[in-house]
Amino acid sequence: MIKTPYLLFLGDAPDPLAAKVAQGIRDWRPENAVGQLRLPGCKADLRIPDMTLADARQAGAQTLVIGVANRGGVISDAWLDVLVEALAEGYDIASGLHTLLRDQPRLVEAAREHGRELHDVRLPAVRYPIADGRKRSGKRCLAVGTDCSVGKMYTALAMDAEMRKRGMKSTFRATGQTGILVTGEGVPLDAVVADFMAGAVEWLTPDNEAEHWDHIEGQGSLFHVSYSGVTMALIHGGQPDALILSHEPTRTHMRGLPDYDLPSLETLRDTALPLARIANPACEVVGISVNTAGLDEDAAVTCLREIEERMGLPAVDPFRQGAGRLVDALDRL
Amino acid sequence: MIKTPYLLFLGDAPDPLAAKVAQGIRDWRPENAVGQLRLPGCKADLRIPDMTLADARQAGAQTLVIGVANRGGVISDAWLDVLVEALAEGYDIASGLHTLLRDQPRLVEAAREHGRELHDVRLPAVRYPIADGRKRSGKRCLAVGTDCSVGKMYTALAMDAEMRKRGMKSTFRATGQTGILVTGEGVPLDAVVADFMAGAVEWLTPDNEAEHWDHIEGQGSLFHVSYSGVTMALIHGGQPDALILSHEPTRTHMRGLPDYDLPSLETLRDTALPLARIANPACEVVGISVNTAGLDEDAAVTCLREIEERMGLPAVDPFRQGAGRLVDALDRL
Repeated sequence: MIKTPYLLFLGDAPDPLAAKVAQGIRDWRPENAVGQLRLPGCKADLRIPDMTLADARQAGAQTLVIGVANRGGVISDAWLDVLVEALAEGYDIASGLHTLLRDQPRLVEAAREHGRELHDVRLPAVRYPIADGRKRSGKRCLAVGTDCSVGKMYTALAMDAEMRKRGMKSTFRATGQTGILVTGEGVPLDAVVADFMAGAVEWLTPDNEAEHWDHIEGQGSLFHVSYSGVTMALIHGGQPDALILSHEPTRTHMRGLPDYDLPSLETLRDTALPLARIANPACEVVGISVNTAGLDEDAAVTCLREIEERMGLPAVDPFRQGAGRLVDALDRL
Repeated sequence: MIKTPYLLFLGDAPDPLAAKVAQGIRDWRPENAVGQLRLPGCKADLRIPDMTLADARQAGAQTLVIGVANRGGVISDAWLDVLVEALAEGYDIASGLHTLLRDQPRLVEAAREHGRELHDVRLPAVRYPIADGRKRSGKRCLAVGTDCSVGKMYTALAMDAEMRKRGMKSTFRATGQTGILVTGEGVPLDAVVADFMAGAVEWLTPDNEAEHWDHIEGQGSLFHVSYSGVTMALIHGGQPDALILSHEPTRTHMRGLPDYDLPSLETLRDTALPLARIANPACEVVGISVNTAGLDEDAAVTCLREIEERMGLPAVDPFRQGAGRLVDALDRL
């Protein structure tokens, strides 16, 4: 568990997209983002106060989160100087970079000297159990996609936010590094050893109050041959009560696999639901989230209407329209 | 890759079952089993020559394989004395024990001193790639089960043996520690990190001659919620041309999951085949292997006949009847 709130380190981000982890924290947990720390040349701006390490510490920041991708997989000396200073100022540091904090001798030494923690959120920090398949109390929702990277995390975060806005009991359960940094906790599922994947998802979504919903961050796709095993473990470890189908209508082939076509939403439904019912016979497909970022407003509306009529389920783009109708669908369950 | 042939270490096995890894090597790769090394009190006997370390070395043995489970997860001093002596005699050591050789300081030191290798086959020794889904040449067969531990490894080994007996081109591809020790190589799939599971299976079953068959050792079951993700990765990474359905007819619930019923063979077929066709549209279910160890001869014959008529596919127990009819079915593909 990463201590909140954060000071968000944007470094020398070459463009706004490089700072998308920080942007995710700013969008979904603004209360966790005390300020931003930018180095000369930084081209990203979260429109929150620029702060020095000392100012943000005064304002209560506990952890410096690296909210930006590093160039070429190397943590530069300019970054290291700031990070070492942060440890001396009393910050923990959290990072989702491929290059690990724990592999940087200067950081390891400074963390030890000052009694601070280094969180590499790409690596599991827990010994997860083998899944036992026991039925847990509380409710769970999982988005499954026709492909990877079609908006499953966004959908889960938007549904969680909408539920909390309505005063419903809800938790977003992160399974990837961005989600873990946004919420301060979770399971880096793609880095878990095969035998413990489903058990890690069970651990992440424990017994809860009967009316509480976990919104589990989806990963991969049953139809993406590189990652389908991870998706399968989410479906069986998460034992969802509700599935959301996620889709990106302009995708011409599976991400990174030019010879693989996307499945139809019907095929996704007919594949995922029977598999989910192995772990939870009551599971239902309740709605569809469509990432229409590649369409203009008219085309998006037409696309959503066509899918909604065809599938007989609410079809929304949570980014354009909010997740209200998906939450309504859960509420009716 | 583990150097063959082996001297099989049975230690002080309390009963024959404790030495089942050694028995597997003796049954499936007798040419790899130069002899057995037993300590006082050993209750297992492979009916191959008892040899000292020096005798077996003279006879060509390269690796001492620990073919027995250790008691209480501890490698005893009596074992360690033998293992250290083996390293001094010029043996490598291979083990599938949970307790790792590399965690035994005496072994690590002796291996370094004598320039020998310690193989802990439960741990991956390779950095596997992310799966790319590219269609590979050659043919692949995978057994998928209604449950775990229903005879998938046995089926693959029996089909491989039958093919080689017929002069066909065939390789058994091990994905678990017993299979790896039997053949000297493979992937310990349940210990691979989630993102690399399917890639590890691709790596294990590379391009091959058009008429060559890989018999991929199955793991878990799509219907076993603890391990279904591993099974999924085998189906998509292995891109099988042929599936064998494996079943144990006396099982009353999923192994270790008392609240989970087994699926029917029809449900297994209708679930596994569409998933397999994502990676290989030409995949077919060609036969059924039934583990009838829990039935007497009459009941077994009746069971097999009933399944064969119901499913319209050859149904055999490879242990009672050999794998000939399953190989015939592959040959017809």
